[in-house]
Amino acid sequence: MTPTDVQNQRIEGGFKLTRVGVTGVKKPVNVLRNGRNLTLTATFDLFVDLPSDQRGSHMSRNLEVVGEIVDESLEKPVSAIEDLAAQITEKLLKRHEYATCAEARIRADYFMEKRTPGGRKTIEAYRIEGHAINREGRVERYIGVQVIGMSACPCAMETLRAMLLEEYPEFDECIREIPIITHNQRNIVTIKMQIPEGYSVEAENLIEIAEKSLSSPTFEVLKRDDEGRVVYEAHVNPKFVEDVVRDALHLIVERYRDFPDETSVSVKSESEESIHKHNAFAERTTTFGELRE
Amino acid sequence: MTPTDVQNQRIEGGFKLTRVGVTGVKKPVNVLRNGRNLTLTATFDLFVDLPSDQRGSHMSRNLEVVGEIVDESLEKPVSAIEDLAAQITEKLLKRHEYATCAEARIRADYFMEKRTPGGRKTIEAYRIEGHAINREGRVERYIGVQVIGMSACPCAMETLRAMLLEEYPEFDECIREIPIITHNQRNIVTIKMQIPEGYSVEAENLIEIAEKSLSSPTFEVLKRDDEGRVVYEAHVNPKFVEDVVRDALHLIVERYRDFPDETSVSVKSESEESIHKHNAFAERTTTFGELRE
Amino acid sequence: MTPTDVQNQRIEGGFKLTRVGVTGVKKPVNVLRNGRNLTLTATFDLFVDLPSDQRGSHMSRNLEVVGEIVDESLEKPVSAIEDLAAQITEKLLKRHEYATCAEARIRADYFMEKRTPGGRKTIEAYRIEGHAINREGRVERYIGVQVIGMSACPCAMETLRAMLLEEYPEFDECIREIPIITHNQRNIVTIKMQIPEGYSVEAENLIEIAEKSLSSPTFEVLKRDDEGRVVYEAHVNPKFVEDVVRDALHLIVERYRDFPDETSVSVKSESEESIHKHNAFAERTTTFGELRE
Amino acid sequence: MTPTDVQNQRIEGGFKLTRVGVTGVKKPVNVLRNGRNLTLTATFDLFVDLPSDQRGSHMSRNLEVVGEIVDESLEKPVSAIEDLAAQITEKLLKRHEYATCAEARIRADYFMEKRTPGGRKTIEAYRIEGHAINREGRVERYIGVQVIGMSACPCAMETLRAMLLEEYPEFDECIREIPIITHNQRNIVTIKMQIPEGYSVEAENLIEIAEKSLSSPTFEVLKRDDEGRVVYEAHVNPKFVEDVVRDALHLIVERYRDFPDETSVSVKSESEESIHKHNAFAERTTTFGELRE
Repeated sequence: MTPTDVQNQRIEGGFKLTRVGVTGVKKPVNVLRNGRNLTLTATFDLFVDLPSDQRGSHMSRNLEVVGEIVDESLEKPVSAIEDLAAQITEKLLKRHEYATCAEARIRADYFMEKRTPGGRKTIEAYRIEGHAINREGRVERYIGVQVIGMSACPCAMETLRAMLLEEYPEFDECIREIPIITHNQRNIVTIKMQIPEGYSVEAENLIEIAEKSLSSPTFEVLKRDDEGRVVYEAHVNPKFVEDVVRDALHLIVERYRDFPDETSVSVKSESEESIHKHNAFAERTTTFGELRE
Repeated sequence: MTPTDVQNQRIEGGFKLTRVGVTGVKKPVNVLRNGRNLTLTATFDLFVDLPSDQRGSHMSRNLEVVGEIVDESLEKPVSAIEDLAAQITEKLLKRHEYATCAEARIRADYFMEKRTPGGRKTIEAYRIEGHAINREGRVERYIGVQVIGMSACPCAMETLRAMLLEEYPEFDECIREIPIITHNQRNIVTIKMQIPEGYSVEAENLIEIAEKSLSSPTFEVLKRDDEGRVVYEAHVNPKFVEDVVRDALHLIVERYRDFPDETSVSVKSESEESIHKHNAFAERTTTFGELRE
Repeated sequence: MTPTDVQNQRIEGGFKLTRVGVTGVKKPVNVLRNGRNLTLTATFDLFVDLPSDQRGSHMSRNLEVVGEIVDESLEKPVSAIEDLAAQITEKLLKRHEYATCAEARIRADYFMEKRTPGGRKTIEAYRIEGHAINREGRVERYIGVQVIGMSACPCAMETLRAMLLEEYPEFDECIREIPIITHNQRNIVTIKMQIPEGYSVEAENLIEIAEKSLSSPTFEVLKRDDEGRVVYEAHVNPKFVEDVVRDALHLIVERYRDFPDETSVSVKSESEESIHKHNAFAERTTTFGELRE
Repeated sequence: MTPTDVQNQRIEGGFKLTRVGVTGVKKPVNVLRNGRNLTLTATFDLFVDLPSDQRGSHMSRNLEVVGEIVDESLEKPVSAIEDLAAQITEKLLKRHEYATCAEARIRADYFMEKRTPGGRKTIEAYRIEGHAINREGRVERYIGVQVIGMSACPCAMETLRAMLLEEYPEFDECIREIPIITHNQRNIVTIKMQIPEGYSVEAENLIEIAEKSLSSPTFEVLKRDDEGRVVYEAHVNPKFVEDVVRDALHLIVERYRDFPDETSVSVKSESEESIHKHNAFAERTTTFGELRE
C-alpha cells in the first residue's frame, strides 16, 4: 500500500500560511573570498508560503535543496552567502510548485585578519548573515553583520570631569585637557541592508563601517602598548549608542551613494552597560531615501 | 561646575532614531488575577524615538518610570501586563518631552493550575508578553503567549501504517483501526495579537487556544495512566505545524469574533523534531480582516 | 491488563548510575525572608542514584515531591532555598526506596532593595542557588549567588598613566594623582559554599561580599551624580579578576571564621572584557582549611 | 616612563588561584581527518594556576599561544583537537613560568557524512570537545562528543499496549505483537572520556557509540521511506535515559578494553520529553576500573 501523501491533502476552510519550513539546519559551506577558500559553519532557516487549500508543505525538499547547494559549493565555492541564499530560494520555488514566495536565511561566524593599533596581526570573529526573499521570481537580497566593539560614555565623562575639577581645583588645566575616566563596555553593532539588483555589498565593508562607528574596535591579542592605544582611542571617541547608529548610517549612505532610494537599511547598537545590569539600545530602520531627505 | 547635559546637545545633519532605550531590565511585578495576588519576575524593554537634532535620550528616565510603576503595583496590583505596558508608554512620553513614540515590552514566566487527563492537579509554566506602542497618545496594545505542548506527525503515521500492513498482513484490520506509531515531540506555539481599544484578551484564554491546537498539552506530573492518556490523545490528534497554526487561527477568529478587521494577529508553531536535529516551523502573520475573507 | 512496571524490571550486567532524574522543572516558590513574603520563579533539577540491577527510576515521583513541597510553601513559606533543597532530598530518598543518594538544585532570580551611592532606592536583580546532596540521610547543603558588577583594569590604568605622562609632560603632577582612564566592564561573580550542619548563611551576605569584592556594584537607576560616583568608585578600586576572587575569599573566611576546615567554597569572577571579544576568568575552588593555611 | 607590570606585583597574604585565564575565544582551526582537510569554528577556554604571591596572570600570552597554534595548523593541520589542546597546555606552561598547571578546552561543531536507513547520503552535525590538563608536564587528555538522537519511552509503550488491549479486545494478538505508540523525543547524549597516554580515541567512534545507544540516530534529510524506518527503528528499540547511558558504557568498555583501570569516563543522556516541559536525565561518571568490577 502506498501511504497517503498527507501533506498534499486538499483542505476546506483553511488559511494560507506566511512561512512554512525548517529552522536551525547546520551545514558546512565552502566560500571563496579574496582568493581564499573558507569553510563556514552555517545555520540555515528556509521557508515557503502555503496556499489555503493544501494541508502541508514538503519539508524534506528544503533539506534536499540545502544539501545540493552545499555539495555544489564543494566543487565551485560561492563568493557570498546572500547569493547562496538567493540561489536556494530559486530552487525552493521550483521544488514547492504550490509556493509563491520562498525565503532563506544563513548565519555564520566569520573571521577576518586585522591589525592592532600597534600593527600586530590578529584574527577577529564576527557574525554574518545572508538573507533572500523570492516572490515569484523577484528576489530581494539582504546582507547583515554583527560586530562586537567598545563604546565609552560621553555623558559620564563630562560628569567625571566636573567631579574631578571640584576635587582637584589645582589641576584645572589638565583635567580640562586630557581624556577623563568614564564607563566603557562591549557594544554590539548590527547592520542589515538590502542589496539592490545589479549591485553588491561586501560583508567586510560593513564590518569596517561598524568598527569605525564604535568608540574603538576590539582585538583578541593586545600586548600592553596595544591595549593602551585601544583604551585611549575609545576615550577620545566617547559615543552613545545613538552616536554609533548615526555614524554608521552616515558611513553607509556615503559609501553606497549610488544605491536607489527604496533600498532598506537597519542599524542597531546595543551596549552591555558596565554600570548597569541591563543594556542600552538604539536603532534606526529605514530606507536610503529617507536618510537622504 | 555643572557638567554638560551631553544628551541634550543639539546636533546638525543627524538622523532621527526609531528606538532608543534599554533592554533586559529585570523587576518583580505584583499582579492580581482572578482574585489571586501573584509576583512575576518580569523583563522589560523600553524605547522612545529621538528627533534628528538631539544627541541622546535620557535613559535613566526609563528606569525611573519602571521603578515607579513597579512600586505602585505593590500598593495596587495590576491585572494585565499589557495594561502595565500601556501605562509605562504614557509615562515615557511625558518624561521624554522630545519623543513622539514610546514602546514597552514585558515578558515573564507565568504559571497556571491545570488538571491532567486523569484529574490530577498540576502547575504548568508558560511565557507571557505584554507589549504597547504609544504614538502621540494613540496606544496599541498587544498580548502574547508561548506554550510548550506536543505534536505527533500525521504523515509518518500513515507511512508507518503502510509499512506495518506490509509486514503484518494478518493484522490488516487492527492496523487500519488503531493509532499507529509516529514521531512526536515538543512543539512551541507562540500567539501574539493586538487588543483593540475597549476590548480585553486574557492570557489564559490564548494559552487554552494554543493547547487545544496542539496534538496534546503536556504536564509536569504524569502518573502512568495520565501519561498513557496524553500519548493516546496526541496520536488520535496528529498535527503538522501547519495544522497547529491553522487550528489556533480558527479558534482565535471564533472566540474574538467581534474584534475589528484591522486587529493584527500572528501565530507560530515550532516543532523540535524528534527525527531531525533541526526544527519544523509554520507561521501566519495577518489581520482578522484577512482571516475572515 | 496491568501494564508492566518497566522501570522496576531487574536487569543483569547493568551498571549503577550516578544521577537519574529531571532537569529544568519550573515552579513558583513562596519564600519568607526578613518578614517579607516573596514569590520566586524557581527552576529545579532533581536526581537520585540507581542500583545496577534496576532498569529505571520512577521520575514522576520527583515531580510529586516538588509539587508537595511547593504546595506546603504556600501555607508555610520556607526561609531559604537551600533548606527547601534539603527537604526535597529527604522526600526523594523516601520515595525512591532503592536510592542511596538524592540531590536537589534550585535556582532563581532574586531581588534586593539597594541604595545608590547618592542614596536613591533601587531594586537590583541577582541569581541565587540552593543545592543539597543527601547520602543515606547525611545531608550536605550549599548556597550560591551570582552577582553582576563592574571591574576596571588596574594594568591598563598604569599603561595609560605612562602614555599620558609622555603626551602631557606639563601635567605630570595631576596625571600621577588622579584616577586615570582604563577599560572597565561587566563582571560576574559566582560564590558557592557549603553550609556546615548547624550553621546558616544568608544569600544577602554573600551578595554583599561579591559586591564589595568588585571595583564597584552596579545599579539599575543612576541619575547623573550617582553615575559619576559609581564610575569614580570603580576607578579608585581597579581590580583584576584575580583580585576580585581573592578579595571575596578574604571576606568569606573572615565573616564565617567559625566554620569548620572541611567546609568547601568556590569563587569565580568572569569579566566580559570591553577591549576583547572574549572573557577574562579567575577561580578558586577549595576548603576553608586550605584558605587558613 | 615604563608602566608598572601590575600583574607581576608581589602580594602578601594572597591566595593561590585554581584557574586564571580566558573563556570564549573563537578561532578557525584547520584539521586533517581521514585525508580530508576541514576548517572548524572552534571556541577555546585556556587557564593556568597562579601562586599566592603573584597579583595577576599575563592573559595576553594565552591569546598569543592560541594564535601561534592556529597559524601552525594552516601549514600543518592537526589531526585531533585533544592533541591541539595538549600542545596548547605545553606552550602555556612555558610562557607562564610561574604556573604549575595549565588547561585547554576546545569545542566545535563537527560534521560527518552519514547514510540514512534507505542509503541516502546526508551530512550530520555534532559537537566535539578536546580537553587537556597539564600538571608540571604530566598531561591528561580528554575527548568529548555531544550527539542529538531520538529516544522512545519503553514504559509508556507498555501502558499504551495495555490501554489498547482494553479498548480493542478483538485485536489482542496484533496489539501484543506490533510496536505500539509511545512518546519519543530528542535525546542528547554526551560522552567524555580520558585518553590514556599512548592511546588514541577517534571522535567518530564515540559518535557512533552514542548513536547506537539511542533508540535511533536522527538525520537531516529523510524522504518518506527513510522517515518510516527511523520511526520504526526507534519503536522497536525503546529506551529510557538510563538504558542509553548503560548501553553507551557497555559499548565503551568493550571497544576500549585495553584501556587502564584508572581511565575516567562520563556518559550523560538528556531527553527533551515530548510529554513534559522539563527534561529527563541520567548520568554515570566513573572509571573503567569500576565499570569492570
